[in-house]
Amino acid sequence: MQISLLIAAVAAVAAEPPWYQKTWYPYLFDCSDSADWRDQYDSACSAHSANECDVETRSACPQTCGLCTPSSPKMVIATPPIMAAAVAFLFIAYLYVRIDAFPTGAEVGLARVDELSLKIKSGARQFLETEYAYLTIFVVGLALTLFFLFYLTEDENAYTIALSVSLSFVTGATLSASAGWWGMMVATDGNAKTTAACAGDRANGVPGSLNAGLNVAFSTGAVMGFAVVGLGLAGVSTAYVVLCSIYGDDDQALVMQCLAGFGFGASSIALFARVAGGIYTKAADVGADLVGKVEAGIDEDDPHNPAVIADNVGDNVGDVAGMGADLFESYVGSIIAAASLAVTQAQKEGDTLQGKSTQAIALAFLLPAVGIVASTIGFFAVNTSAQGKGWDVHLGTLMWALEKGMYLAAALFTAGAYVCVVQICGLGTNIFACVIIGLAAGMAIGKVTEYFTSFDFGPVMSIKDRGMTGPATVVIQGLGVGMISCVPPTLVLSVAIVSTSALGGAYGVAISAVGMLSTLGITLATDAYGPVADNAGGLAELSHLGKEVRDITDSLDALGNTTAATGKGFAIGSAVLTALSLLSAFKNKINDPTGYDVGDPVVLSGVLTGAMLPYLFAALTMISVGKAAAEIISEVRWQFKHIRNAKGISLGECIRVYTEKAEEFGEGVYRAAPEDEVEPDSDKCVAISTRSSVREMIAPGAYAVLAPLMGGFLVGPRFLMGLLAGAITSGCMLAIMMANAGGAWDNSKKLCEKLGLKKSKDPAKKEQQKACVVGDTVGDPFKDTSGPALNILIKLMSMVSLTVAPLLKDHKDYDHWEYGLIPTAIFVVLTLILGPMMNILTWDDPLANMVSGDAPEDMGKGSSSRSYEPLGLPTTGNRRNTVCKVIGRLLGGGGGVHQNLVTP
Amino acid sequence: MQISLLIAAVAAVAAEPPWYQKTWYPYLFDCSDSADWRDQYDSACSAHSANECDVETRSACPQTCGLCTPSSPKMVIATPPIMAAAVAFLFIAYLYVRIDAFPTGAEVGLARVDELSLKIKSGARQFLETEYAYLTIFVVGLALTLFFLFYLTEDENAYTIALSVSLSFVTGATLSASAGWWGMMVATDGNAKTTAACAGDRANGVPGSLNAGLNVAFSTGAVMGFAVVGLGLAGVSTAYVVLCSIYGDDDQALVMQCLAGFGFGASSIALFARVAGGIYTKAADVGADLVGKVEAGIDEDDPHNPAVIADNVGDNVGDVAGMGADLFESYVGSIIAAASLAVTQAQKEGDTLQGKSTQAIALAFLLPAVGIVASTIGFFAVNTSAQGKGWDVHLGTLMWALEKGMYLAAALFTAGAYVCVVQICGLGTNIFACVIIGLAAGMAIGKVTEYFTSFDFGPVMSIKDRGMTGPATVVIQGLGVGMISCVPPTLVLSVAIVSTSALGGAYGVAISAVGMLSTLGITLATDAYGPVADNAGGLAELSHLGKEVRDITDSLDALGNTTAATGKGFAIGSAVLTALSLLSAFKNKINDPTGYDVGDPVVLSGVLTGAMLPYLFAALTMISVGKAAAEIISEVRWQFKHIRNAKGISLGECIRVYTEKAEEFGEGVYRAAPEDEVEPDSDKCVAISTRSSVREMIAPGAYAVLAPLMGGFLVGPRFLMGLLAGAITSGCMLAIMMANAGGAWDNSKKLCEKLGLKKSKDPAKKEQQKACVVGDTVGDPFKDTSGPALNILIKLMSMVSLTVAPLLKDHKDYDHWEYGLIPTAIFVVLTLILGPMMNILTWDDPLANMVSGDAPEDMGKGSSSRSYEPLGLPTTGNRRNTVCKVIGRLLGGGGGVHQNLVTP
Repeated sequence: MQISLLIAAVAAVAAEPPWYQKTWYPYLFDCSDSADWRDQYDSACSAHSANECDVETRSACPQTCGLCTPSSPKMVIATPPIMAAAVAFLFIAYLYVRIDAFPTGAEVGLARVDELSLKIKSGARQFLETEYAYLTIFVVGLALTLFFLFYLTEDENAYTIALSVSLSFVTGATLSASAGWWGMMVATDGNAKTTAACAGDRANGVPGSLNAGLNVAFSTGAVMGFAVVGLGLAGVSTAYVVLCSIYGDDDQALVMQCLAGFGFGASSIALFARVAGGIYTKAADVGADLVGKVEAGIDEDDPHNPAVIADNVGDNVGDVAGMGADLFESYVGSIIAAASLAVTQAQKEGDTLQGKSTQAIALAFLLPAVGIVASTIGFFAVNTSAQGKGWDVHLGTLMWALEKGMYLAAALFTAGAYVCVVQICGLGTNIFACVIIGLAAGMAIGKVTEYFTSFDFGPVMSIKDRGMTGPATVVIQGLGVGMISCVPPTLVLSVAIVSTSALGGAYGVAISAVGMLSTLGITLATDAYGPVADNAGGLAELSHLGKEVRDITDSLDALGNTTAATGKGFAIGSAVLTALSLLSAFKNKINDPTGYDVGDPVVLSGVLTGAMLPYLFAALTMISVGKAAAEIISEVRWQFKHIRNAKGISLGECIRVYTEKAEEFGEGVYRAAPEDEVEPDSDKCVAISTRSSVREMIAPGAYAVLAPLMGGFLVGPRFLMGLLAGAITSGCMLAIMMANAGGAWDNSKKLCEKLGLKKSKDPAKKEQQKACVVGDTVGDPFKDTSGPALNILIKLMSMVSLTVAPLLKDHKDYDHWEYGLIPTAIFVVLTLILGPMMNILTWDDPLANMVSGDAPEDMGKGSSSRSYEPLGLPTTGNRRNTVCKVIGRLLGGGGGVHQNLVTP
Repeated sequence: MQISLLIAAVAAVAAEPPWYQKTWYPYLFDCSDSADWRDQYDSACSAHSANECDVETRSACPQTCGLCTPSSPKMVIATPPIMAAAVAFLFIAYLYVRIDAFPTGAEVGLARVDELSLKIKSGARQFLETEYAYLTIFVVGLALTLFFLFYLTEDENAYTIALSVSLSFVTGATLSASAGWWGMMVATDGNAKTTAACAGDRANGVPGSLNAGLNVAFSTGAVMGFAVVGLGLAGVSTAYVVLCSIYGDDDQALVMQCLAGFGFGASSIALFARVAGGIYTKAADVGADLVGKVEAGIDEDDPHNPAVIADNVGDNVGDVAGMGADLFESYVGSIIAAASLAVTQAQKEGDTLQGKSTQAIALAFLLPAVGIVASTIGFFAVNTSAQGKGWDVHLGTLMWALEKGMYLAAALFTAGAYVCVVQICGLGTNIFACVIIGLAAGMAIGKVTEYFTSFDFGPVMSIKDRGMTGPATVVIQGLGVGMISCVPPTLVLSVAIVSTSALGGAYGVAISAVGMLSTLGITLATDAYGPVADNAGGLAELSHLGKEVRDITDSLDALGNTTAATGKGFAIGSAVLTALSLLSAFKNKINDPTGYDVGDPVVLSGVLTGAMLPYLFAALTMISVGKAAAEIISEVRWQFKHIRNAKGISLGECIRVYTEKAEEFGEGVYRAAPEDEVEPDSDKCVAISTRSSVREMIAPGAYAVLAPLMGGFLVGPRFLMGLLAGAITSGCMLAIMMANAGGAWDNSKKLCEKLGLKKSKDPAKKEQQKACVVGDTVGDPFKDTSGPALNILIKLMSMVSLTVAPLLKDHKDYDHWEYGLIPTAIFVVLTLILGPMMNILTWDDPLANMVSGDAPEDMGKGSSSRSYEPLGLPTTGNRRNTVCKVIGRLLGGGGGVHQNLVTP
């Protein structure tokens, strides 16, 4: 069925005259409906490109083609993407109907599943509310800063420009945040329904099925995917139309400048979402995991573990909202970069784009529109007839269930892209080749990532083997695998960059990024499917569902791990291409005649400094996870002692009874009587994760925004160019290394489980499994916190630079270094506040102060003195409380949650 | 005393007319001995710089000043460095006399110490012989390749140039290898004498002292330090004179081109020495360490452990020979880069060096000469009155004992540098400032490194604290510390580059590297002291010397750890500056008019590819350590079972008796009767380490040489420029991260020992210590194999590029891509040989194949079938044996060692 669709599409392309020439094109370009419209159009308009079109030329134009109608170009460009966004929204509505048709937990007699899912949903909502409250301050502050920065320039339109830039910024930020919210809300509904679909309706004799589970989870993921592309494309196209209306169709350079503000807004939300989400998810995960070590006998997945809900919230916060914001930014960023480069490159003598500015801009908006339609069709190809067999499922078969959809979408997109590039926009096949190179590079990187992180291949097996000599060799081998895994994606990207730039210049590179991201709707659906399936499995375990249900959810989860890893590869690849395109756009705006010679010491020291930034950023986020996890542990220990039920049984005692019974009768057989059961206070762990992740995101987020400003103003734009190049390339390596090493460690642990080492009677094999668990724990912040956050770092820094480029234009080295003192001062003050004052930037380990000496005995003497602050740091804690209270009051609603936390 | 010397030097500078104007300068420059010679010189010679001096001008010159005497400039330039090298050699002779005066082990009644030391020496010799045998093939092959490459150019002097380049290459390689050999031979003598000095002569009532031990160890290290600077400076100056004689004083550009070959020779030896040495030292270390885990109850330092001698050999191989070769390369490389840049920069209109080519070249040779003299004087300031108190010694006091010498040398050098720059070479104070910035930057980086790796400060303590939650958090925190530790050195280097380039252009950067490295004699002595002290401690333990002796050696060792860490920081900093200078020199040679714009996609994809190479290189070396360690483990296990004494007691049984007795009577009390004692066969472990390290060095070494050739020819010089910039910056970060994370983990383990956690009765504290041991094991290949090897990678790739620059000149992108197929073909063939054919590049773990299933029982059935090959891979093993035998026969003597290995 899918093949026939493909054939039909190709046939349509080959047909002469094609159907769309008669229907779509005349509508768009307002040309007369003749078969040979292109000839007419060419003869009429080739003499004057849209850029040179002045009012006289337009009125003298013999045709009424779009390019020569004053109001038309922007509408010609923006109509298809806005229509495609509408398609995306309609499709989301369909998905809602589809998801609604699946039964809830209550409808299949599993009310407990719904109940737990609601907890997860409320935790996720609580996190997002707190995060967004902080971000509101940040966005408003930065919008005002941008306004004043641009207002104080000597441009005659300073006020209009300043207003446009800052409003674009706010719009980009709002849409990015909305996409995250939307995806997360539906994901936290979808998890329960996925569990229900896997369990089936026992009362009515409907068995659970893998296909049903896959359908719910994938539909849920698709809502996220299409929300991102729909909001992204609608937003950026609308912003483009509005800006064109303000500045006129002719001043595209100014339009692009203001449009960069939109990308900056999306970037900054993405950064904080990724960093906070990444810290949240891993703090909860590592915290829940380590409790088993600090307090012996408590399992990570035990429903009595108060951190387990936070762990499940984390999956959504990090992998759904974080990943969505990340790719929203890449998606929007690649369009903006391509459009900006189209403007500058069309002015170059002899360039392949010369005089085709409008067409090249139109293509940047048209391709994602085609991609949405292709993704929608591709969605229907996803299904499977495989049965759930736990970890033994053949991953290849399951993977194919999802890949079918992606490949169909890619094929349709290829056909559509040819029509768009060559026939609609009248650009050469060289540009078409760029698009296809981008698409193919994205897929190749995904496949390579699969090789390095799937347990079917050598790298992961080698890590498992090293487990025999202990955790150290597991860590060494995992790092080695991660490092070597940088080689193929880098070569793919380098070849893609060199070839697309040879074919189409800087615009060629940018449009290849657009091509890579065009089918994001379905790619992201595949990716967001993972955490939904993961949550569904967690819910099945927490609700004590049977082995047959868990087998199905485990199969879905195993697939989710693979798609998560390949999705990360894709995210990095697209981030690098996008960032490099933004870099080119920045360069074109600055256009320093002395050049940016990489052998020049100023540029070179910029590259050196830039190469360092990802390391700083990764270190800050990695260390944050450890500190946040320590706070979770301290709360869990408190709860074990002090939470009691009506009969006076403490949570810890209840767990001990479970543990004893499990040893006696086997795991999962015993269930306590309702009056003996003790419920943990999961909400507190959710609140702590929320608070600490939001607190820890401030430093890395702010540094990422400040670094390019400091570099650009203190030294100059040449230094900044080097800084960006260094940060992008070094960040790319570190991101790939961390993501793939993390994925490989994770799956080496899974491989040990699959091979039954965990339950082996040979102590050496048990040790081997334990060694792999150490690797997995190291990998957690690698793959879910620091690695992904680096994607955004490199894009955000490029976007910041592009946005402030007009302020840096024509600066020589050390011109206006005094402006650089402002971001430097902010940097210093912030560091002093976060470091010595609030003790957030510190080498101290909250847990170390707590565990050392007799602290455990002292903890929580009476619930009135209950404290979440690290013991031994009372003054710092108090000071921090005061600051938090002030912030809490400032924040109102969102801060309320926070305020409740620190005032018992 | 030292202060008065300093004052005298400063006074001498300030005096008018200074003493050296009457004595030294006229001799050098052959001017008339008048007080106002500079005025005369200026008026006579300012009209024509040395570069423009033709025969007519010279004969017309009214003065007989050096610059105008045809034969003179090269001698003027080369005399001071050759004299200084002679000083270095004289000083080495003095050091030998000094070391000779200290008693050997036998002379203080500790013949066992000498005996063990001899074993170490013979192991080291065996390694170097094997390594050098391989390197001979490599050097000859590469020399021939260089000869043909240059011979086939269309230059009229092609034959002469080709011969000069390849002979320079061979000379550089030979001298680098000689320095390594020399340092290692004296270091392996010095270790026994250090132990003897710490033990004192008990028979004659002479107590051991910390100062005596420090003196022997430091004198031994100083031999290495001065051998490196002596051979380096003598070699490069002589090569310069010879090349000037061939091409005439006027064609300095050609001279510099051939001189690059000298640097290339030094680099290539350095690379292999560092990589093989690094793999050797850590394979033996990790292997010896892991035996305790695989075979319970055997300690790393147990004299019955057959790997313990190899471990001690490794300290010399990696830290003495490897570090020496590394800094030899930086030393020589910085001089060559500065001299090359002097030539090109002196031709630029309006440059600070315009027309001062000879003076600027002279300075590059003069500064190291001054540095040698300053280092010699500084040496005598090193002594201490502190007492050995094991790990409790106040490190600051001991560190000051060494730092006194370095600071004195630096102060003297500063005074001397002022005279050289301003008064002798007539260059501005701006150039003097560059020199001092370089010197200060080197010291600052060392101090910063100390902060991140010493257990007196927060970072290391934080790693220890994370031990409470297990090894995973230790690893995460260690990586975090390593990453953050990139920030200060990068900022120091960036500021140094930006400021020196502002002061003196690219030459300013290069001369700052020369300044940083000028006092290398004493810096390297401090560094090479570490492994000598480490070995002395090992010998004391192996010879069962008393606690009071071990306290002294432990104090020396603790100091050695700190100097090793700061030395690594210095090595990285100087490598980066040197590599960047080489990059500038390369750029000037290629001089592509299209420029190397970092925003250009071709350059940018070069940066991206370059940023990846350090990761590949680090991964290859890291994984190699694991594989080589596994082979050691397999040998040790074999020996435990099959080595028996005359009474038929096996080594394993003997160890078990020791373990039981230790439990009964306490550690170190019981000693077996001579007839019950079993000696392990340490030589075999030495041989295995040698073989596997040499085998594993081939891939990374060859890839490092091939990568710039492939990039440069397949794409073009612009891509290569990007590749170098990317590799230098990304490699710098990875090297700092790995070296400092490794050092911090090491010292966090030491901190646990110091705090007595190892022997604590609290199991939680024991676990904490164990967690830190995991970090230390991960850090071993980080700090001693991969991290240091990256220093060389970045210099070698720059040096390769500089050497082949004449062949790439005037190439556009993709011109002559067909030449690039040659290195690519070599790369592919080599990878196929090392991968599928010889199974060296593989994910397989030799130990995994061995341990899994019943392999341990099968091992070594009868000594005739004894095999070092991984079990389960017999065919690969056989094939490898054949290849090795063939190589062995080709090699003759050196190969003989190798041949013995593979044919039992």
